[in-house]
Amino acid sequence: MTQVRIFDTTLRDGEQAPGFSMTPNAKLRMAKALAALRVDVIEAGFAAASPGDAQSIMEIAGTIDGPVICSLARAVRSDIVASASALAPATRKRLHVFLGTSPIHREAKLHMTREQVLEAIRSSIAFGRDYFDDVEFSAEDAIRTERDFLAEALSLAAAEGASTLNVPDTVGYTTPEEIYDLFRFLDEAVDRPEDVIFSTHCHDDLGMAVANSLAAVRAGARQVECAVNGIGERAGNCALEDVVMALRTRGNVYNATTGVDTTKIMAASRTLSQVTNTPPPRNKSIVGANAFAHESGIHQHGMLQNRETYEIMKPEDIGLTTEGIVLGKHSGRHALAARAKALGFVLEGEQLDQTFTAFKIVADEVGTVDTARLVALLSEAQTHRPQDLWKLSKLDIRAPLSVSAWPVVRVELEHGERGRVTDIASAPGALDGAFAAVSQMMGVPARVDSLEMQYIAADRDQPAPDGQGASVLVEMTIEVDGEIFAGRARSRDILPCCVSAYIDAASNAQAVRDLRESNARKDQAA
Amino acid sequence: MTQVRIFDTTLRDGEQAPGFSMTPNAKLRMAKALAALRVDVIEAGFAAASPGDAQSIMEIAGTIDGPVICSLARAVRSDIVASASALAPATRKRLHVFLGTSPIHREAKLHMTREQVLEAIRSSIAFGRDYFDDVEFSAEDAIRTERDFLAEALSLAAAEGASTLNVPDTVGYTTPEEIYDLFRFLDEAVDRPEDVIFSTHCHDDLGMAVANSLAAVRAGARQVECAVNGIGERAGNCALEDVVMALRTRGNVYNATTGVDTTKIMAASRTLSQVTNTPPPRNKSIVGANAFAHESGIHQHGMLQNRETYEIMKPEDIGLTTEGIVLGKHSGRHALAARAKALGFVLEGEQLDQTFTAFKIVADEVGTVDTARLVALLSEAQTHRPQDLWKLSKLDIRAPLSVSAWPVVRVELEHGERGRVTDIASAPGALDGAFAAVSQMMGVPARVDSLEMQYIAADRDQPAPDGQGASVLVEMTIEVDGEIFAGRARSRDILPCCVSAYIDAASNAQAVRDLRESNARKDQAA
Repeated sequence: MTQVRIFDTTLRDGEQAPGFSMTPNAKLRMAKALAALRVDVIEAGFAAASPGDAQSIMEIAGTIDGPVICSLARAVRSDIVASASALAPATRKRLHVFLGTSPIHREAKLHMTREQVLEAIRSSIAFGRDYFDDVEFSAEDAIRTERDFLAEALSLAAAEGASTLNVPDTVGYTTPEEIYDLFRFLDEAVDRPEDVIFSTHCHDDLGMAVANSLAAVRAGARQVECAVNGIGERAGNCALEDVVMALRTRGNVYNATTGVDTTKIMAASRTLSQVTNTPPPRNKSIVGANAFAHESGIHQHGMLQNRETYEIMKPEDIGLTTEGIVLGKHSGRHALAARAKALGFVLEGEQLDQTFTAFKIVADEVGTVDTARLVALLSEAQTHRPQDLWKLSKLDIRAPLSVSAWPVVRVELEHGERGRVTDIASAPGALDGAFAAVSQMMGVPARVDSLEMQYIAADRDQPAPDGQGASVLVEMTIEVDGEIFAGRARSRDILPCCVSAYIDAASNAQAVRDLRESNARKDQAA
Repeated sequence: MTQVRIFDTTLRDGEQAPGFSMTPNAKLRMAKALAALRVDVIEAGFAAASPGDAQSIMEIAGTIDGPVICSLARAVRSDIVASASALAPATRKRLHVFLGTSPIHREAKLHMTREQVLEAIRSSIAFGRDYFDDVEFSAEDAIRTERDFLAEALSLAAAEGASTLNVPDTVGYTTPEEIYDLFRFLDEAVDRPEDVIFSTHCHDDLGMAVANSLAAVRAGARQVECAVNGIGERAGNCALEDVVMALRTRGNVYNATTGVDTTKIMAASRTLSQVTNTPPPRNKSIVGANAFAHESGIHQHGMLQNRETYEIMKPEDIGLTTEGIVLGKHSGRHALAARAKALGFVLEGEQLDQTFTAFKIVADEVGTVDTARLVALLSEAQTHRPQDLWKLSKLDIRAPLSVSAWPVVRVELEHGERGRVTDIASAPGALDGAFAAVSQMMGVPARVDSLEMQYIAADRDQPAPDGQGASVLVEMTIEVDGEIFAGRARSRDILPCCVSAYIDAASNAQAVRDLRESNARKDQAA
């Protein structure tokens, strides 16, 4: 098997996309995750773009061990000098010079003739080699460059000492057949020393970045440029996790492998989500919340019989430790019985039928049934007693704006059997105060794990609960003794909505705890 | 050019994924958007899955004209009868029967021999044809089925009257080369009447659903099954917008086209985002917020000279009317000058240099510079006077929880020149009340367009502004006289943070209005 190098550009092409800017601290944190992932090259930034970029590259260069650290540079001396100085602290470093070679880039953007472009390549690579042993050259918009001229430009770069020749699909325009054919051609046509390798850099504008990168590998490319979660300009770069896992899963087709430690993929993806405050979509391949989740009844039945029925990778392979079977309205009775068993309930025969009917009604109503809601359902089925639920009955906040004073929050809860309970708390933020008061009254010490709010304008499809005005929808997760519980609420007002969602999550935690205690008592009695 | 049918499964495979459940109303709304898009087939659901599903299919069948309406069914009589009754109101209808054919499905899930599988296909298709003229058969997990058996199963389905033979990559396992080869083989090996067509249904588990679907088309498939925004089980289905725009943009490679009205793509994508409360990620191809946005200075320079430098599609092609150049820390001086000009400022020579330097400082600090912030910068550059900015100085809320009473909100703002202003408002929600009071005081009538909040736990990378506790980050857009303005704020408390973000957005609207008025006065004076 051939080893393909993984060149990660999360911190350069990824970071320069709107919405994915990172602070220097965030970049350093991400670089550490990339080093743990064992990528071959980290493109840490574009030193000449701004003093902040240069400073950040220098910090990463001075901290990260293992991967080669790289800076992007235009084919001009000042950019190369800036890169050299930013990369000075690195143990292993690379200069990445780029220049547009396509007619549209030469004419519309650079205003340069073919000869001028070649001269710029020659002089910049030669100049770069005075500072760097490891130089990569990118022929920007290579895909739309005349083939003979592209081969000429790349041969020249190799002759001047570039050891990696990158052939980017800058506009995300190519197809697997086309790029395969181009790399086959270049392999024949480019004059180069034996150790010079070709690299692919694909954008996802037509949704084909991964397939195009792999087609280039089939045709001989030995480096793939990619970014975690597929971030990057416009539709983003080839997703690192996709290309790595495709090579791992379909090694028989590509006959190539990478040095990446795949069990660190989820950690890298989560770090990026945190530092950019942007998680990948649920349906993102490999790292999305749904990637290993199976809701549909048909699929779940298959999954439970034999995991390979619907799963071509194991969650453990990417460092995901929990299996994500989510019960919902499409779930079948096999899935329900299996999850119930994991929670200590054995459902068989008629009892399974009855519980399944009850489950379908709840699922039709709420969509997804999480662990705690399921426990509530199962408890009901066994005890014929409805759940006791806490409800928010009053919330009063005095929220001064001055920094020295903390807001005072008064929360009144109503409990099905115990009646009303009131508590007062004060914290730097009103939300945290209210959460603390609720935790105190319910006896559920919790930490907020995530909280998301959506503002739903009045004219949307679903009218607000009270039929007027806008409403907010809050979904949150809390951590109780290392376990995660989910809660949600929708109402017209933001603060009560957050508090109700917290109560919902805490009630779920409580239900599970009560059930465990009751099971433990039964065991002792038995 | 061959015409390829677009079979949309947003409402079936898409809807059954966790997080994408839709209410019957939402499904109907989405079906209308799909009809406007002119897809060929709408798979409206799986009639036998639940009474709600059947009801929803019936509603769509009775309302939507144009596309064929389809229901999924297992290869059993009860499912087929349920489909027939749900689809009764449809003008054009299709039955979609599926059955697993791969060894792992036969053995682990179905517990059926090859002969039993063939018999089930034979009898179910024959039974289905009693109710339907248009029957599709799917060999579930076709990609992992023995080739000879797959050809046998599909030949049998065609002989019994199925006119569409679907070859799904159920687990998202295949590659473009492999699926191309398979469809070439099937074209040879499957005995069928001339009007029977092959269909492809790809999942994105390895990030290759689009490329795989297109490879199948190259090999002769005449129907592509796909979903808007690429939603669906696990990593989702092939994205409709990707495959349609790839065929349109790269017709020269695929020699195929679709009947889709591409100018309705954005509308369909937005409808789905709204009814599922889940927008596609910024970096989603075609429909993501960044798909047509260019922040990097290098790219912007090229873009402004000639749009084709970095754009292979026009935003208008997909019904996107505004161009998305976002200025940020990677933007160059060309981009700045062009945007300034569009706002009525002519920047040249030294003035451009100075403004660019000031712009870079702001951009380094805030990341993205929206129109209004830019106007503020430009005004400063011309007048040497800092912007007057409104600030929230006090916020007091009495928020009763009973439905009959509305919360009363007292807002005090501080204006750089005019000092403090106070207003009181009451609305169904405290947020709306506060927004109304701010609008009143600032003289900016606005409607909330979007509002997103993130809760940032105390132990994150960036400490809260006051160095203690959690904080919230609010980003919102408001609409003022048909124009959108953006605002953001970060603070430790949720309500003041929302109000500050609103003030930020309204200030931006005000700055633009002031500038326009001042320019109009200058024009009159000149």
